[in-house]
Amino acid sequence: MPEVVFSVDQSVSMTAQAVPGHNRWHPDIPPVVSVRPGSEFRVECRDWTDAQIGNNDSANDVRDVDISVCHMLSGPIAVQGAEPGDLLVLDILDLGPVPQAVGAVSGEGWGYTGIFARENGGGFLTDHYPQAYKAVWDFHGQQATSRHLPGVRFTGITHPGLFGTAPSADMLARWNAREQALIDTDPARVPPLALPPLPQNVLAGTLKGAELERIGREGARTIPARENGGNQDIKNFTRGARVFYPVFVPGALLSGGDLHFSQGDGEISFCGAIEMGGFVDFHVDLIKGGMEKYGITTNPVFMPGNVEPRYTEFLSFIGISVDHGTDTNLYNDATVAYRNACMNAIAYLKTFGYSGEQAYLLISAAPVEGRLSGVVDIPNACCTLYLPTAIFDFDVRPTADGPRRADRGACAVST
Amino acid sequence: MPEVVFSVDQSVSMTAQAVPGHNRWHPDIPPVVSVRPGSEFRVECRDWTDAQIGNNDSANDVRDVDISVCHMLSGPIAVQGAEPGDLLVLDILDLGPVPQAVGAVSGEGWGYTGIFARENGGGFLTDHYPQAYKAVWDFHGQQATSRHLPGVRFTGITHPGLFGTAPSADMLARWNAREQALIDTDPARVPPLALPPLPQNVLAGTLKGAELERIGREGARTIPARENGGNQDIKNFTRGARVFYPVFVPGALLSGGDLHFSQGDGEISFCGAIEMGGFVDFHVDLIKGGMEKYGITTNPVFMPGNVEPRYTEFLSFIGISVDHGTDTNLYNDATVAYRNACMNAIAYLKTFGYSGEQAYLLISAAPVEGRLSGVVDIPNACCTLYLPTAIFDFDVRPTADGPRRADRGACAVST
Amino acid sequence: MPEVVFSVDQSVSMTAQAVPGHNRWHPDIPPVVSVRPGSEFRVECRDWTDAQIGNNDSANDVRDVDISVCHMLSGPIAVQGAEPGDLLVLDILDLGPVPQAVGAVSGEGWGYTGIFARENGGGFLTDHYPQAYKAVWDFHGQQATSRHLPGVRFTGITHPGLFGTAPSADMLARWNAREQALIDTDPARVPPLALPPLPQNVLAGTLKGAELERIGREGARTIPARENGGNQDIKNFTRGARVFYPVFVPGALLSGGDLHFSQGDGEISFCGAIEMGGFVDFHVDLIKGGMEKYGITTNPVFMPGNVEPRYTEFLSFIGISVDHGTDTNLYNDATVAYRNACMNAIAYLKTFGYSGEQAYLLISAAPVEGRLSGVVDIPNACCTLYLPTAIFDFDVRPTADGPRRADRGACAVST
Amino acid sequence: MPEVVFSVDQSVSMTAQAVPGHNRWHPDIPPVVSVRPGSEFRVECRDWTDAQIGNNDSANDVRDVDISVCHMLSGPIAVQGAEPGDLLVLDILDLGPVPQAVGAVSGEGWGYTGIFARENGGGFLTDHYPQAYKAVWDFHGQQATSRHLPGVRFTGITHPGLFGTAPSADMLARWNAREQALIDTDPARVPPLALPPLPQNVLAGTLKGAELERIGREGARTIPARENGGNQDIKNFTRGARVFYPVFVPGALLSGGDLHFSQGDGEISFCGAIEMGGFVDFHVDLIKGGMEKYGITTNPVFMPGNVEPRYTEFLSFIGISVDHGTDTNLYNDATVAYRNACMNAIAYLKTFGYSGEQAYLLISAAPVEGRLSGVVDIPNACCTLYLPTAIFDFDVRPTADGPRRADRGACAVST
Repeated sequence: MPEVVFSVDQSVSMTAQAVPGHNRWHPDIPPVVSVRPGSEFRVECRDWTDAQIGNNDSANDVRDVDISVCHMLSGPIAVQGAEPGDLLVLDILDLGPVPQAVGAVSGEGWGYTGIFARENGGGFLTDHYPQAYKAVWDFHGQQATSRHLPGVRFTGITHPGLFGTAPSADMLARWNAREQALIDTDPARVPPLALPPLPQNVLAGTLKGAELERIGREGARTIPARENGGNQDIKNFTRGARVFYPVFVPGALLSGGDLHFSQGDGEISFCGAIEMGGFVDFHVDLIKGGMEKYGITTNPVFMPGNVEPRYTEFLSFIGISVDHGTDTNLYNDATVAYRNACMNAIAYLKTFGYSGEQAYLLISAAPVEGRLSGVVDIPNACCTLYLPTAIFDFDVRPTADGPRRADRGACAVST
Repeated sequence: MPEVVFSVDQSVSMTAQAVPGHNRWHPDIPPVVSVRPGSEFRVECRDWTDAQIGNNDSANDVRDVDISVCHMLSGPIAVQGAEPGDLLVLDILDLGPVPQAVGAVSGEGWGYTGIFARENGGGFLTDHYPQAYKAVWDFHGQQATSRHLPGVRFTGITHPGLFGTAPSADMLARWNAREQALIDTDPARVPPLALPPLPQNVLAGTLKGAELERIGREGARTIPARENGGNQDIKNFTRGARVFYPVFVPGALLSGGDLHFSQGDGEISFCGAIEMGGFVDFHVDLIKGGMEKYGITTNPVFMPGNVEPRYTEFLSFIGISVDHGTDTNLYNDATVAYRNACMNAIAYLKTFGYSGEQAYLLISAAPVEGRLSGVVDIPNACCTLYLPTAIFDFDVRPTADGPRRADRGACAVST
Repeated sequence: MPEVVFSVDQSVSMTAQAVPGHNRWHPDIPPVVSVRPGSEFRVECRDWTDAQIGNNDSANDVRDVDISVCHMLSGPIAVQGAEPGDLLVLDILDLGPVPQAVGAVSGEGWGYTGIFARENGGGFLTDHYPQAYKAVWDFHGQQATSRHLPGVRFTGITHPGLFGTAPSADMLARWNAREQALIDTDPARVPPLALPPLPQNVLAGTLKGAELERIGREGARTIPARENGGNQDIKNFTRGARVFYPVFVPGALLSGGDLHFSQGDGEISFCGAIEMGGFVDFHVDLIKGGMEKYGITTNPVFMPGNVEPRYTEFLSFIGISVDHGTDTNLYNDATVAYRNACMNAIAYLKTFGYSGEQAYLLISAAPVEGRLSGVVDIPNACCTLYLPTAIFDFDVRPTADGPRRADRGACAVST
Repeated sequence: MPEVVFSVDQSVSMTAQAVPGHNRWHPDIPPVVSVRPGSEFRVECRDWTDAQIGNNDSANDVRDVDISVCHMLSGPIAVQGAEPGDLLVLDILDLGPVPQAVGAVSGEGWGYTGIFARENGGGFLTDHYPQAYKAVWDFHGQQATSRHLPGVRFTGITHPGLFGTAPSADMLARWNAREQALIDTDPARVPPLALPPLPQNVLAGTLKGAELERIGREGARTIPARENGGNQDIKNFTRGARVFYPVFVPGALLSGGDLHFSQGDGEISFCGAIEMGGFVDFHVDLIKGGMEKYGITTNPVFMPGNVEPRYTEFLSFIGISVDHGTDTNLYNDATVAYRNACMNAIAYLKTFGYSGEQAYLLISAAPVEGRLSGVVDIPNACCTLYLPTAIFDFDVRPTADGPRRADRGACAVST
């Protein structure tokens, strides 16, 4: 087991840790530790909400999540010798849930998937499912089952949803400007178009007072993926994966968390992974001047691991960029096409007895693949959702006999 | 070899065949043959342009393609007993290029990938690459190489870009209405937002005179994927795949073509597959009333085959929904995110010595995967392009040594 | 389609071809054609028995096979510039069954699997199944089904059972000496320990008279794999594979045939593949002096292709080197261990309603994997047979409910 | 983390544990705990030698191993309700090395591979490599590297080498009889043909005195695989695998250990896995009367997991059943054929600069596959060893340029 360079006591909040982490992106959050290129180390992580969600049968906690505290990140970790223009080479050696039960938090043998309520940001299908819902999952080694989704069992592609390097001050300013410009196009929208800096509940390591207030005013929220990586939610960033992060500030300042036991491409219900606290083991290295050498100037590049679960049979649902409710054609809109593919998958699963909410939670959390199949055949983008058939304990394929409808229980709902 | 129910003489145009096919979607194009559920049969196909492109080193033919004749489809094939509401179960038993050389057309041992010029519709990156370009590929069994892309060799996931059932008259009317409404939002746009019915060069089997004119006025163009399947360009619809098509008219009226030796997810250069003429062998069956039974009412569902080439190491390029040139934030726009992932892949490959055009052709035609990784982390959608490293005969991974830059030749250009 | 350098008229015997092949290994069989390194070419092949087996429901033809004519090989093909000590680099670009039906021979849409009778050589389980049996398979693109094995459908890993280079005169003499020495240890054994040269039915291209008689006296039978490759029956030597053959004579003198639509590891019923006539497309090259450079002096080395069918769930049957009937322990005998694994698989499949003969034919022909799991834990070697569960149209896994026994028909038997 | 039902203090010998395990098979070793069908539990394990091997650069400890104490097993564990004739259904939920460093034993971040000296039992190639050698491996998450094998890095298929149910008294008597009969055929052989019961260093839980002496006289040694499973050394018995063990005594009495970080098929150097201490998490269930229901009467059946590392390119070495040194033909001897395949792989790797001993250690420990390719083409069995090319950090494929010979260091040797 490599040295723990960021440790977490899972029985208390990130704000109460001996060495607290942070929940905004800002270059002036001081590093908590420095590591050498070539070294291996462990980072312990809180669940992304700082453990606001419980192992129970009500989705009220999902409905009431305070996302001003999210994501609770571990770090920053300074990498010795890293300079702007370098590539930070990060290998994921291992990762997993919280090993011992000390605080009854997610990751201690269980995790959860939530559908956020529309008033709280909603998810990808919030126009269809505006309420809060939840599924709790039990871990069995690398596999997960849920009392809220009977008939399903799958192997997780466990991964961190969020890691990244710190933005430079200039980059941070550009992020804030462009996101505010987007918000300004429809400032009253619910859910909002983007999330601007928010002083409320800001955490920036041990910073206090005026310095902390400044981080609150300037620091970028952690929800979106950006040039520094961040909340990319790429399910294949798993054991054995290697990432090449652009370095924007001296020391690179690596931070992250938001561990997922499993997630489908898109993480469509927003809190759509199986969320958990846990640990990640990394190996770190540098390619000096690598950004220019390899033209990696805009976003990270990564190489997925070679131990993802093998599935070979899929039901693939297709969506095109048409609003079928109003028969309105969008122009080459892959987002709409994938949403339709998701809705088609849900319609299908409902014929087997699942509720729409259950199916929505399932395709959020299970290792489904989302593909951009066609993006040039105007006006219709064509996206596909690949659902592995082996995750069901019944035959989920279409046959002349029709679907095996059964009582599939229910997910957790809000009151 | 199953019975050929639609045969093509590759030495002459589809319009000159003994039994010609068609190039518009319309329920009133008469079927050329009928087949029984449970039967196996072969369909021969022209290349999608009716062989307008040559095996040469100039992209002028790509520049000048007349797309009013596209796609040249084989069919319609009536399936006995099929009624609206059924699911047509179609298995792809085999498919491949034109077996014998009789007319020097694509598919006879070679195929091509084109980047369309902006004035002719353009491709996914037409703002960056507005001219016409071409790569010609040589087939070596299941593998392809190109004199226009030295250093690359891969196994094709051979598939038909386009098959589908005929729309009902009502569905066709809705297609035309919604697409015209889209066009009307910016009728002068180049390239256009959609392609309305076009009488010029219409082909509808043996129909002539007023009937043909009506097909020309009413028939939907074949470029986009729609509810009937159509030009879905799904690369995994290969040998061993099974598709469930909704049936909208009596007899289902199956048609298709647009065979691809290989294609990356998205087919990003528009004519981005390795295009060819050839054949497909099908098995057909019906699930009576299957649309309602399984909730498959909007789009086809399919199951991919189990013989795709195995690649296990990928370089994955990430894109987010930001216009980096102007630092403008789009809202959760997966199309823009994937476009950025494509641009990042091209920037990377250029450091090894490929031109941007070559790299664009390469990621259009090679078996790259395009994934919708994040579609809920507002405002940034996050898409990823997976490039298999084994298709290069040099080490394409980032190392401390920097990229192995070399003379990588050139693709075909237009004058 | 590459140039055909060895063509076969499937309506007549190999002996009646315009350019006949051969059925013994000997350096003095003259090449029929020469090819350049770097070239691609097609070789057409008869089925290994020269089409002695019919598409019918009797195994009498299997019982009565005359194996003095086997294997009927296409070649020899001289490779220009090849010299002893080189490595011949052979890529399998494509291969498949006979394209057109001209003679009602195997490969024309069908193939067969036979269990040889004990008097005719027997198979791996001849002590348990001494009679002749047969299953006829129908081809559906890359998949096969059999009326003699209902409930089973799988994708073939199509491959040539036999290709190799010619032995030198010295090597041939050593083969004959060592095999005769083995025979001499038990010359009366039925089946025999090895097959010595046999003048009867010898074919050596156009050689006649005394030269042909000499080939008959000296030429090695083609049944076993040897240093030149030969009848290795390696199922993964499929499309996309590359083989490095040692070169023992000037021109290398490549020959082969014995095409298999599918085969399990071991080809346990002897004629255990799905046998067929057909074609192979090759690319050829040389590594000059490669045998010494790479230490490849004893046997060929190969790299399997990357398009084998993907199966991810297997039932794995274990066998150890014990004769369970007599409770006798063999010493680290992997042959006995694998035989027991095969018998365990058959015992299992019988509980679902298959006859032992059917199960034997099935694990001979289906893409099962045979593994040497332990060969050091004395005294018991441990071998395993991996049976993919997806080839059955029923659930073949053990459950608390017990096996789904059903009427599974019957295979072809001899009278 | 499931409940630990068998715990190990890694700082002391198995004999000194609060609840010791055992090192012989015997039905009268009392169970240490009982578990319910349907439950999940953790078993902690010593390394198979009880930690006789150190993390150092001398193979003297391998040379001097006392195998009378081997294997040190954890158990027996009684399964409530299990009766003779049932099948014990065991799922491997998770397994891994010793989590915390407390005793400097293997599994605490490192493991070892040993070649046993001929006088101490030897390995599969003991005629060629009669001395003792060792490689120490460092763990990096799921990957391993060795200072004794530079240039190599691979993902382990971590698994237990040995688990099994207790034999009945009658079965035990038959084992002893048949193995003694084998020994009697050549009692003076070095190494011996089998290992009879041995009172020296016997451990049987808390049994003492006369009862322990009886176990010593009667208890079967744990080296070979037998009807109860035991030391099967099947590398694919990894996370996600399910095993069906025959039950021979009331309570089934499950025991095991011998954890491997990685192993190639055959475990050819005898101590050829990467040996370690650690833990296994199981789920257990029963199929009542399953042995007869499914015909699983002789050996266990298992289903491998779906998270093995993916390799797609292999160099495959072929061996046939000929003693090439003396040009002597064996009859269909798969053991000899696989030995030749191993020797061919070693000869090949030596051309890149590895010593024979290094190559031997490498193909013992790396995830190579050993296949029974042909077992009917008399007289030559044909076996193949598949070596994944991606485990090397240089290009290991044959090219016209010849092998990249380099200084590859050395393994640990004995003095």
